[in-house]
Amino acid sequence: MPASDSDVLVVGGGVIGLACAYRLAAEGADVRLIDASGAQGASWAAAGMLAPISEATFGEAALTRLTVAAVPRFTALAAELEAATGSQVGLRRDGTLVVAFNSDDKAALARLSAFRSEAGLSSEPLTGRQARELEPYLATSVRSGVFAADDLSVNNRAYVTTLRAAAEAVGVAFVHEQVGGLLQSSARTHGAVTVTGVTYEAATTVLCAGSATPKLLDVEVYPVKGQILRLAVPERLSAAGPVLTRTVRGLVRGSEVYLVPRAGGEIVLGATSEQQGHDTTVTAGAVYELLRNAYELLPISSEFAFVEARAGLRPSTPDNGPLVGRVDDGLILATGHYRNGILLSAITSDAVHELAAGRGLGPEWAAFEPTRFARG
Amino acid sequence: MPASDSDVLVVGGGVIGLACAYRLAAEGADVRLIDASGAQGASWAAAGMLAPISEATFGEAALTRLTVAAVPRFTALAAELEAATGSQVGLRRDGTLVVAFNSDDKAALARLSAFRSEAGLSSEPLTGRQARELEPYLATSVRSGVFAADDLSVNNRAYVTTLRAAAEAVGVAFVHEQVGGLLQSSARTHGAVTVTGVTYEAATTVLCAGSATPKLLDVEVYPVKGQILRLAVPERLSAAGPVLTRTVRGLVRGSEVYLVPRAGGEIVLGATSEQQGHDTTVTAGAVYELLRNAYELLPISSEFAFVEARAGLRPSTPDNGPLVGRVDDGLILATGHYRNGILLSAITSDAVHELAAGRGLGPEWAAFEPTRFARG
Repeated sequence: MPASDSDVLVVGGGVIGLACAYRLAAEGADVRLIDASGAQGASWAAAGMLAPISEATFGEAALTRLTVAAVPRFTALAAELEAATGSQVGLRRDGTLVVAFNSDDKAALARLSAFRSEAGLSSEPLTGRQARELEPYLATSVRSGVFAADDLSVNNRAYVTTLRAAAEAVGVAFVHEQVGGLLQSSARTHGAVTVTGVTYEAATTVLCAGSATPKLLDVEVYPVKGQILRLAVPERLSAAGPVLTRTVRGLVRGSEVYLVPRAGGEIVLGATSEQQGHDTTVTAGAVYELLRNAYELLPISSEFAFVEARAGLRPSTPDNGPLVGRVDDGLILATGHYRNGILLSAITSDAVHELAAGRGLGPEWAAFEPTRFARG
Repeated sequence: MPASDSDVLVVGGGVIGLACAYRLAAEGADVRLIDASGAQGASWAAAGMLAPISEATFGEAALTRLTVAAVPRFTALAAELEAATGSQVGLRRDGTLVVAFNSDDKAALARLSAFRSEAGLSSEPLTGRQARELEPYLATSVRSGVFAADDLSVNNRAYVTTLRAAAEAVGVAFVHEQVGGLLQSSARTHGAVTVTGVTYEAATTVLCAGSATPKLLDVEVYPVKGQILRLAVPERLSAAGPVLTRTVRGLVRGSEVYLVPRAGGEIVLGATSEQQGHDTTVTAGAVYELLRNAYELLPISSEFAFVEARAGLRPSTPDNGPLVGRVDDGLILATGHYRNGILLSAITSDAVHELAAGRGLGPEWAAFEPTRFARG
């Protein structure tokens, strides 16, 4: 089979692979990106929350530092992509409103807010009434809330499309094939081979295959299925103004639910978290639960149009943090971004660029060495 | 604009229009069928229940007689189409199991069964336990049931596709355009004109436009929106045998719900009944309610795959019966079939053939004269 060469071969075309390919090509490398489906995985299913504050949780201090550092990198990349392509990625700076329904939820939210304050993250406690002043359609059963004004969101699909267009514009070559394995010899990676036996050689291979990464390399990444719905606010409801302005999230009977508004009336409703291997079936039970939870948070959602149901596989790791670093002289790993792939895509592409240039990474990456779970 | 002529112009390409076009062309007429969307309306959304027994209700004796008479016509047409095309329409003769959850439901079901027995329709009363012997996955909250062994079902989409193939084989010409109006002069219809001004003249026009009929003729037909889901039983659940064998239906909190099994593991879950004009939006609230009701009837349904959500507009009339008859020397009307369009398609095509040949209709059609609601 013929071999094709490039400086860099990026394996995986989700937001991590696209951002790395874009960054490396923009800095002058000859880059090829290989992916069979073209960002149809977790990146396409995602809700697009950029939520370092409302996602921050106990025991994940290093991850929180990374996600906070990622925000200005993300917004800078978004501006760069928009200028380069003339397209919009739908960045919104309206913050996240986290709500509680009962005294248990309220206490849990208060503890989490205290932790976030200690970590230097700004969030403002609200009564139920104050929460409804921000979002008038919230259920009357909402007892209290916390407003994280600095959380953002992006239209994940517009971001993927724009990133791809920008990558094409700086010369990234796209190959639509299924990778079957890495080319390795003398403890060094030389590229990848497709399932049909075509080889693509490269001085540097960047492996960004998300939940499929363990099929190519022995790493501790496992899929966490997320089922997610796309709804739309009918025009008659939004005639007097938007029905939802901010991302709203809460716990309903122990399940996390969030509603992310977009320009044009789309509302993304997510998401389940299920560990069941690589299955991406949308199930009746998950759709039912998501709609029930949305109804409890925002009763008017029952009148929204039902547009799409989809499942994606988040690439999780034992500590919920990504795996970013050099594996061998020819291989860089950038995967395992779990719930934060979109937010971390820009800062990860910077890190991969540093690694590809032979430099080390800053202290914010120390906790995310790929070898940290190495067995034995 | 150019004019095209044919013996017969059928306006509307749902099951009624297709069956009429097929029958008339099979009997030797030169037939043209005009429809913009190609059976994408109520016929495509339908569940395919052929249920003269479980649909029979108080005050609709004439309609029940017609639907009972329609069954052998339908099965004969299905056999004829299958022989002509080599395709299968997915006819199932497994009956309908109607279930009740509480004493009110149980009493209502008993009254309806008594009425059906008096009308000569066979249905067998069952205890909750007997119902679960027939369908082991039924909810334990099912208190009683009635089994209508003679109800049938058909795969509505296979039926539409087969009917269309058979119609093409006997020479029906299909025109994919939107009809804007009928051509009428001297109190007689001469064909139809498209929204772009193209005219199609015919000696006989057969108007089968379902819920869109009132846009072309002043008739008492109004749309009743039905939202319906298509689910699929995962293989792991059906490894030991089918999860559902018969159509199961019941009232859940006052809403009617039914589950219609198909070969290959598809389960159709219907349906809402909403009077809201010509809107065909699928709503979050309806999807939620359908899934909740299915769960209450058949809890294992939460594990089914969610395949499709769709809405269609049933063409209803003030007495729920169709409008079939001659309107003027050039116009035959066949519309308003409401919940029974698929079941009544064959017998309606026979009636339209009689009318087109200048003959009158039998007594089973006496109650369905198009003029019966005429104002003033």
